[in-house]
Amino acid sequence: MAVLPLPVNNLISALERLPGIGPKTASRLAFFLLRSPDEISQQLAAALVDIKKATGACKRCFHITLVEQEFCDICQDSRRDESLICVVEDPLDVLAIERTGIFQGRYHVLMGVLSPIEGIGPEDLKIRPLIQRIHDETIREIIIATNPSMEGDATAIYLQKQLHSSGIRITRLARGLPMGGDLEYADQNTLQRALAGRQDMG
Amino acid sequence: MAVLPLPVNNLISALERLPGIGPKTASRLAFFLLRSPDEISQQLAAALVDIKKATGACKRCFHITLVEQEFCDICQDSRRDESLICVVEDPLDVLAIERTGIFQGRYHVLMGVLSPIEGIGPEDLKIRPLIQRIHDETIREIIIATNPSMEGDATAIYLQKQLHSSGIRITRLARGLPMGGDLEYADQNTLQRALAGRQDMG
Repeated sequence: MAVLPLPVNNLISALERLPGIGPKTASRLAFFLLRSPDEISQQLAAALVDIKKATGACKRCFHITLVEQEFCDICQDSRRDESLICVVEDPLDVLAIERTGIFQGRYHVLMGVLSPIEGIGPEDLKIRPLIQRIHDETIREIIIATNPSMEGDATAIYLQKQLHSSGIRITRLARGLPMGGDLEYADQNTLQRALAGRQDMG
Repeated sequence: MAVLPLPVNNLISALERLPGIGPKTASRLAFFLLRSPDEISQQLAAALVDIKKATGACKRCFHITLVEQEFCDICQDSRRDESLICVVEDPLDVLAIERTGIFQGRYHVLMGVLSPIEGIGPEDLKIRPLIQRIHDETIREIIIATNPSMEGDATAIYLQKQLHSSGIRITRLARGLPMGGDLEYADQNTLQRALAGRQDMG
């Protein structure tokens, strides 16, 4: 005898496949959707169907864009500096950097990081198209903005080696104490980086 | 200029409406769905549409059931004790009690709790149908299993007053220290209840 009818169990299983959502959260969400007006689940269902049909990757930088657009809005924006490329792991990182409001160049989305454990090598990332861009476009500086993680660092070092011979300036985001952080609670690695990268106060 | 195409923003907004999902989690989930195979978002979309079409409330206990069934599987199970009713706030609580494996009676789902702040009064809950069941069925004991919260307690006391005159035995779940808990970290209320409800060790 089933305690819950099949459609409810199906929804719970489908929600459980999402990252960070365990069995308890999945049930809670399912019952919230059951109790709430139809439009909430309908809009979510429609958005889920839409996202796969209506979006694709920008042909130049691989940031997410509408399927009918060849290039994303950022690549199409002529006011942005074409000679400055910020290399990020995924589209969410583009959002994070755009929120700072101070970057006026373009992006290149790798669509992942090198990860030998998960079997992700250079050929699985958009590294070859990046090298192609260096040949095709006039680029002054490449800012490597991979995550400050083991994989992110390994990917940054790999890219630096690949791009070194181009003679283009290659930089990476500064490491140090996060704003609003507490020195006392900073982990050892962060503090080591902050010390090693200490800046003159002029 | 939009940093993200509209379909992605639509999905993020739809996910943000779910309880406990903020803007950051919503973006993370949206990008997970974008990257993952089509079937994951398709199954979720289908389950969302299904849940509203295919489920309804049991006509006797208001637990969730298939729309084509008049009574839920628990109410239909003749091996269960018809004379014992466990009153809970919502269908998730039925699941929690079923997981214990020791309750062999039936349920009555109130579909909420009394909450003057949210404007939820007795008429908004399935209290009248519960009183009707007491008249129609032969009931020996009613276990009130509302949550150990302010609203849950108020609802339990309200029910006790309403059902008192029926002469049926009315009980509620024991209060005390949770298993695996630490006395040192127990809150004052819990400890007061545990002391007041102390049990003889025989």
